[in-house]
Amino acid sequence: MNAAIRAIARSAMTAGLEAYGINYGFAGLVAGDIHQLSSSDMDGIIARGGTILYSARFPEFAEEKVQLQGIEQLKKFGIDALVVIGGDGSYHGAERLSQHGFNSVGIPGTIDNDIPGTDFTIGFDTAVNTALDALDRINDTATSHQRVFVVEVMGRGAGDIALWAGVSAGADAIVIPERDYDIKAIADKIKLNRKKGKDHALIVLAEGVMSAADFKTKLDQYGSFDSRAITLGHVQRGGRPTAKDRVLASRFGDYAVKLLLEGKGSLAIGIRDNKLVATDIIDTLENHKHITDVSLQDVNKRLRF
Amino acid sequence: MNAAIRAIARSAMTAGLEAYGINYGFAGLVAGDIHQLSSSDMDGIIARGGTILYSARFPEFAEEKVQLQGIEQLKKFGIDALVVIGGDGSYHGAERLSQHGFNSVGIPGTIDNDIPGTDFTIGFDTAVNTALDALDRINDTATSHQRVFVVEVMGRGAGDIALWAGVSAGADAIVIPERDYDIKAIADKIKLNRKKGKDHALIVLAEGVMSAADFKTKLDQYGSFDSRAITLGHVQRGGRPTAKDRVLASRFGDYAVKLLLEGKGSLAIGIRDNKLVATDIIDTLENHKHITDVSLQDVNKRLRF
Amino acid sequence: MNAAIRAIARSAMTAGLEAYGINYGFAGLVAGDIHQLSSSDMDGIIARGGTILYSARFPEFAEEKVQLQGIEQLKKFGIDALVVIGGDGSYHGAERLSQHGFNSVGIPGTIDNDIPGTDFTIGFDTAVNTALDALDRINDTATSHQRVFVVEVMGRGAGDIALWAGVSAGADAIVIPERDYDIKAIADKIKLNRKKGKDHALIVLAEGVMSAADFKTKLDQYGSFDSRAITLGHVQRGGRPTAKDRVLASRFGDYAVKLLLEGKGSLAIGIRDNKLVATDIIDTLENHKHITDVSLQDVNKRLRF
Amino acid sequence: MNAAIRAIARSAMTAGLEAYGINYGFAGLVAGDIHQLSSSDMDGIIARGGTILYSARFPEFAEEKVQLQGIEQLKKFGIDALVVIGGDGSYHGAERLSQHGFNSVGIPGTIDNDIPGTDFTIGFDTAVNTALDALDRINDTATSHQRVFVVEVMGRGAGDIALWAGVSAGADAIVIPERDYDIKAIADKIKLNRKKGKDHALIVLAEGVMSAADFKTKLDQYGSFDSRAITLGHVQRGGRPTAKDRVLASRFGDYAVKLLLEGKGSLAIGIRDNKLVATDIIDTLENHKHITDVSLQDVNKRLRF
Repeated sequence: MNAAIRAIARSAMTAGLEAYGINYGFAGLVAGDIHQLSSSDMDGIIARGGTILYSARFPEFAEEKVQLQGIEQLKKFGIDALVVIGGDGSYHGAERLSQHGFNSVGIPGTIDNDIPGTDFTIGFDTAVNTALDALDRINDTATSHQRVFVVEVMGRGAGDIALWAGVSAGADAIVIPERDYDIKAIADKIKLNRKKGKDHALIVLAEGVMSAADFKTKLDQYGSFDSRAITLGHVQRGGRPTAKDRVLASRFGDYAVKLLLEGKGSLAIGIRDNKLVATDIIDTLENHKHITDVSLQDVNKRLRF
Repeated sequence: MNAAIRAIARSAMTAGLEAYGINYGFAGLVAGDIHQLSSSDMDGIIARGGTILYSARFPEFAEEKVQLQGIEQLKKFGIDALVVIGGDGSYHGAERLSQHGFNSVGIPGTIDNDIPGTDFTIGFDTAVNTALDALDRINDTATSHQRVFVVEVMGRGAGDIALWAGVSAGADAIVIPERDYDIKAIADKIKLNRKKGKDHALIVLAEGVMSAADFKTKLDQYGSFDSRAITLGHVQRGGRPTAKDRVLASRFGDYAVKLLLEGKGSLAIGIRDNKLVATDIIDTLENHKHITDVSLQDVNKRLRF
Repeated sequence: MNAAIRAIARSAMTAGLEAYGINYGFAGLVAGDIHQLSSSDMDGIIARGGTILYSARFPEFAEEKVQLQGIEQLKKFGIDALVVIGGDGSYHGAERLSQHGFNSVGIPGTIDNDIPGTDFTIGFDTAVNTALDALDRINDTATSHQRVFVVEVMGRGAGDIALWAGVSAGADAIVIPERDYDIKAIADKIKLNRKKGKDHALIVLAEGVMSAADFKTKLDQYGSFDSRAITLGHVQRGGRPTAKDRVLASRFGDYAVKLLLEGKGSLAIGIRDNKLVATDIIDTLENHKHITDVSLQDVNKRLRF
Repeated sequence: MNAAIRAIARSAMTAGLEAYGINYGFAGLVAGDIHQLSSSDMDGIIARGGTILYSARFPEFAEEKVQLQGIEQLKKFGIDALVVIGGDGSYHGAERLSQHGFNSVGIPGTIDNDIPGTDFTIGFDTAVNTALDALDRINDTATSHQRVFVVEVMGRGAGDIALWAGVSAGADAIVIPERDYDIKAIADKIKLNRKKGKDHALIVLAEGVMSAADFKTKLDQYGSFDSRAITLGHVQRGGRPTAKDRVLASRFGDYAVKLLLEGKGSLAIGIRDNKLVATDIIDTLENHKHITDVSLQDVNKRLRF
């Protein structure tokens, strides 16, 4: 997030524009919690997790009246265009402002990777690596103690974190909302592995499917596995961002400013097939969905024990 | 763990002895799952989490008959002394073997730091730093989203992890089994902090007190905090050991061999006041308890916001 | 590397083939240091740096006679196809074997990212993140001590590591072999920044341009900067691979086996525009070059202080 | 460093005192670059490397006239006591101020661990773990490529980093300024190991002995080792501090304030035998030296291959 804020602000300043930061998202927008950013405010933030502009839920922004109040504030500060970084809610806010004629651009920033119009979101790579750190450690314990671990990773609507972290950790099974799963088949595989000499197992589960505790209960109906359920939860958020996320955020922010300077707007920024793209934000949100690369599940099946 | 295994085996070989590894703890001892270790088996394991000798629960070892079977196996392999690395259960096994006249030495290896006879156990420093990684990330989210996080860390009988990780993370409150706690006072402090401009809070809770979910429920009775409960759980285990743990394990293992070579035995190894010590294992377990440095809670109170 | 070895071996076994590992690269091939791999040999190696098959330089493999000796060994073990993981040298060996009619496939594995036929190589993302860890720490010192650091990162022929690590660290200048550089302009920028209140600077330099020490000497001719030269060197190699590298290696290895099963061969595997590709290895090496995305240098210029 | 700043400031505020920060060390003191610290200034800094108060060399502070100017500034701001965090230079500055009657307390903060009056300094544990990260990675490469690495770690006057990082990394030799070394014996050991099947080696060298390049040159006179020289250098500084360093810094800062409140002063704070201690700063600097625990070198000799 901070890397994107820095990129937008610095790129704008380099182009001779003024950059303003809005604290607490749309709540701060409506309340006028807006302040000019200096270049030195951006110094060093690229390495830090979280966001220097804070974040807040603001369901009230679904109301047209409140949206128009937000636009009033933007005009009061002499702001010509808004760049919103975030997930689903942030994007819909930007869409509404665009519909009211206020030039708003969305940058995909959510760890779940579930935004249409892009292959990757800012924060996804960091979250996957953080989950992987935990999975590697859990593998140490699973191996030493001959245990079966069911680990629930983030991903309400999309299995991307489960797939990437699962393949990286060498999971015995990856369970995602995009595809059916067969708990009995997973149980049979674990039993077969034991006969072949592998006493431990790791099952990576996207939270959108069910909870780790529920999965463990179902799994235990098929055998005695000395299984443990773990929910990684909030531990996957925050932390020093990876290089990939910082480069992506830097490119997104810089590209958003470039497009605004060219007079374009109402766009959703993304990266597709390794190229920066910008699509109409209204069309993107109304007519497209994020597509998870489920082929990683097939790869994983061929590579497990 | 692996660092201690390496230290015992290598130090013994350097002294001209043979070293044997026993897989799966006392279960493997009784089953005769015993094999000679070579120096090259130890190569590189100092950097790895878990244990190359595996671990298993074996409550049957409480029976005298089973203990004597274990001693039979040791004699069959020509083994003169046993070094056990572990926590409470491992120590009691070593104590029983010592009582039967088989020279057994205990090395404290448990992440909870709750072993008598030592200020620090192997694994504690690594677990604290792993918990701290998670707490630092949670702090990022708490700060960005103005939330209260209740984070349960390991420590059934001892608050050591909570205290060290809590002080390191700059927690607003640390709740440990060694001392009474006052949830209302914690709630009042959070409310007071909000008035002074600090919107987020971190409460670090030892699992021995209650679960994070229960604590959150109680806390929420005193106000509306947008609180979240997190249980770090198994994520705190495993992983690359820290330098402090590796040095400690190396010194412990080397010292255990030195004492055995001097003809001593039935000992609990430890570090006290920064010096290696060895105390009678029976006396240590029967008459002493681990003492947590609760003064860290007082330090933390003076250093928080 | 290990993730790719695991992927090739496991994917082959899943398809009913036997997999063999060759130690010490082409040297071991010619010497017949070849052994069958089992699925359990692959357990856990995905998380480990280095390579379980070792690596060795073997310039003698440039001779046709030696190449034919290698093919003899492969036939002796009943091996039908060879998958080579590595950089320039490994690829040319695979090309030669293909020219002699032995089916050989190359998988790009080098931290420099300088292999034709792919946007990314295995190891690049890990090396960039490792370099970034160091740069973040150096930034801490630079900021605290008002210093100018010239940091040389790996990249003899390609500036990829310098660009990715430099953008991620928020470098004040990135110097790469693909483009001219102007030391005086960099010195002037540092002086200008000081007037604007920024006392520290970070210059990221690809080793292919010149050494950090030489760059520092030239820079110091333009002013008094309290500058320091650092060469990251071998510290950038090894270590736990990132999720991106593990996923990439898993996909590459699995894809190589898939192509071999389809009867294809003499290929260079790669990822281009986020899609797996395979191109003729001879044509790829003879007629194509790796293309560095130098636009990241422009992005960085717009985002720095 | 930041953890200690936070501890001093917060502990003082909790006791009802005002806390001031001085930027750029003694240079800022003399220039009057002094500002009051608020509790919220301290929020989150415990997790960050470097120092929010900056650091600067200031050899001019050796002059009595300049020292008295510093005391003038302190009086101007109504400051009654000074807590200095740092190494040798900082301590001598504090000693001088104490000699002039201005109550000054030293907290040991240097990565080299070479301050008298304490077993451990703030920053040492972090630096050792950072060096260890690099050594673990180098071990990956050494093992894969059968190489001998000579790695120079920080430590001009003391071998502490070399000893702790060397034992932790399982070094084949640790060379420190406190003890004689025998390069021929090291070379012979490497050759012997090769005969026994270990092809790689790691030599950890304290910078106070000689440079890695010089050591490599001397080593190469005894055989053909495919050796590489690496200087870790500045990469060992900075970065997120470890739990041990944060707890130590928190305790030191809190203890310094406690002593000042009791009317004591002119002290050097330390930890000895795991207990906080405070000794006369003048006596400590004039009559005592840091004692490195060289027995770790003996331990390492018994534990290596």
